[in-house]
Amino acid sequence: MAKRKRILSGNRPTGLLHLGNYVGALRNWVRLQDEYECFFMVADWHALTSDYADPSGLELHTSEMILDWLAVGLDPERSTLFIQSKVKQHAELNLLLSMITPLPWLERCPTYKDQIGQMANKDLGTHGFLGYPVLQAADIVIYKAHAVPVGEDQVPHVEMCRELVRRFNNFYGEVFPEPQHILSPVPKMLGVDGRKMSKSYDNCIYLKDSRPTVQKKVRTMVTDPARVRRNDPGHPEVCSVFDYHKIFNPDEVPQIEKECRAGSLGCVDCKTNLGEKINRMLDPFREKRAVYQREPKRVAKIVQEGNLRAQTEAEATLAQVREAMHLPA
Amino acid sequence: MAKRKRILSGNRPTGLLHLGNYVGALRNWVRLQDEYECFFMVADWHALTSDYADPSGLELHTSEMILDWLAVGLDPERSTLFIQSKVKQHAELNLLLSMITPLPWLERCPTYKDQIGQMANKDLGTHGFLGYPVLQAADIVIYKAHAVPVGEDQVPHVEMCRELVRRFNNFYGEVFPEPQHILSPVPKMLGVDGRKMSKSYDNCIYLKDSRPTVQKKVRTMVTDPARVRRNDPGHPEVCSVFDYHKIFNPDEVPQIEKECRAGSLGCVDCKTNLGEKINRMLDPFREKRAVYQREPKRVAKIVQEGNLRAQTEAEATLAQVREAMHLPA
Repeated sequence: MAKRKRILSGNRPTGLLHLGNYVGALRNWVRLQDEYECFFMVADWHALTSDYADPSGLELHTSEMILDWLAVGLDPERSTLFIQSKVKQHAELNLLLSMITPLPWLERCPTYKDQIGQMANKDLGTHGFLGYPVLQAADIVIYKAHAVPVGEDQVPHVEMCRELVRRFNNFYGEVFPEPQHILSPVPKMLGVDGRKMSKSYDNCIYLKDSRPTVQKKVRTMVTDPARVRRNDPGHPEVCSVFDYHKIFNPDEVPQIEKECRAGSLGCVDCKTNLGEKINRMLDPFREKRAVYQREPKRVAKIVQEGNLRAQTEAEATLAQVREAMHLPA
Repeated sequence: MAKRKRILSGNRPTGLLHLGNYVGALRNWVRLQDEYECFFMVADWHALTSDYADPSGLELHTSEMILDWLAVGLDPERSTLFIQSKVKQHAELNLLLSMITPLPWLERCPTYKDQIGQMANKDLGTHGFLGYPVLQAADIVIYKAHAVPVGEDQVPHVEMCRELVRRFNNFYGEVFPEPQHILSPVPKMLGVDGRKMSKSYDNCIYLKDSRPTVQKKVRTMVTDPARVRRNDPGHPEVCSVFDYHKIFNPDEVPQIEKECRAGSLGCVDCKTNLGEKINRMLDPFREKRAVYQREPKRVAKIVQEGNLRAQTEAEATLAQVREAMHLPA
């Protein structure tokens, strides 16, 4: 059997994982395990780029993230689950790559100015935040990953990573392959208040939410504002609940659309149905999560072994990097 | 006996050490060993900030630097001599500190724009070069150094280091002491061609130069241009050779000044005398260097033990840093 190609991806432990994370990333990661050798990283150092002023949630969010990952089906038998800050080589390679990274590459990065604008309540004008794509490049190339599953907004970072690889290989000789991006299809899914699903808006359905909590949150969802009475005809194209049905209940979509437009399906029933479908999807995750939660030693061992595998791979690459750059072994 | 205060200093292995390095730094380091617990670092990662495009000299310059250090009297029994890139914790702390370093602090740093202007042949507009003072701060605080011996141009870096320490301690609790700078007296000493002594100008007298080489280089030195004939009266205040006498031959300075002004001391004799004085200073260094050069295993062991001591100290600090920042142990 040919050696599987390798991918690297990660999440920043800035809060609990929610349905948006699942649909936008995790769901794809679970599938990618069949085809690729996968490295999944809790990107705790990356979390500091924006949350440096108060990192007190890092420990909790890291352990919750590992549980969520295991719950949804990231498989430690096939994939390497690890914590970024436990693989010190990422910091070393980050430093080395930063030496060859032209400032304009970073200053022109579209996510840089976007985020600085969006997060007006946080001072992101730091050397670390500017260097986010350098650390990300180090994360990727340290495993000589062939590909990186990303959302559309992260594509420029992978492009910059390729440019950095070319620059490095040009200066010091061929060490790194150029990673490709795997664009994850991300269906439209807003938070329960109709804004982007985001922890900071408190509008998320979390993967670890209980059945009643999911139902309660779905009940608050914004529907067609033109529909005042139970029998008014609805407009599914402007309804968040309908968007959710497309994702979590695709089989019933034609029927729901018909009945909604006819005014024969009320929003309350429609939401209860959606909540149930989400809950059915989450049920096996909840079960698996509960099992792992009862066995903290087993989880700790999974992470420990993942860290070790990652360290071994990263160290092998760093050895080549140091030699190429004439640094001591 | 009270515990000695600690200092950290270092040199970038970008070439052989010369008289300017000795007079401006090494000479003071040797003395500081009596009073302080000293950490001396071959700053190979720092060398990459400017020499990233061709690091092929790093290995040679590093081993030559260690020999020069031992030759002039840095004492591995009392001081820790180590190689920066062998203490990975510097890279980790650099990354963490970069998260809290405001870009304007770096952009306004006087050395930043100076050097970018001076080294027009190198592209220094990189993320690594901009972050030079962050890495330097990491180097210092990782040993909780109380003081840093520096030249005047480096004082702003130590000030920024103090600011970073205050910012860190403010966010995460008291971990680091604020380091003070020890201003090294640096007497005026130009290169043999009358420009600043610098490897890139090829106008240096190196610590490892042989007796004849020193004499040859001194003979080329620029003297008072108004003195055309042997018996013309000289003007010591514009003569580089006279500046050197002040440093390497202070006892004879009054007499030399008198005879030069009277036109009774010729430049050739004056230079031969200077060369001899420099050589007498360098002779014990040459002897000691030769001894160490014959024992590469002993030198390797010194460096290895230094790296280990540095790693142990750095790791102890990092453990506190990780805990303060809620990162895994």
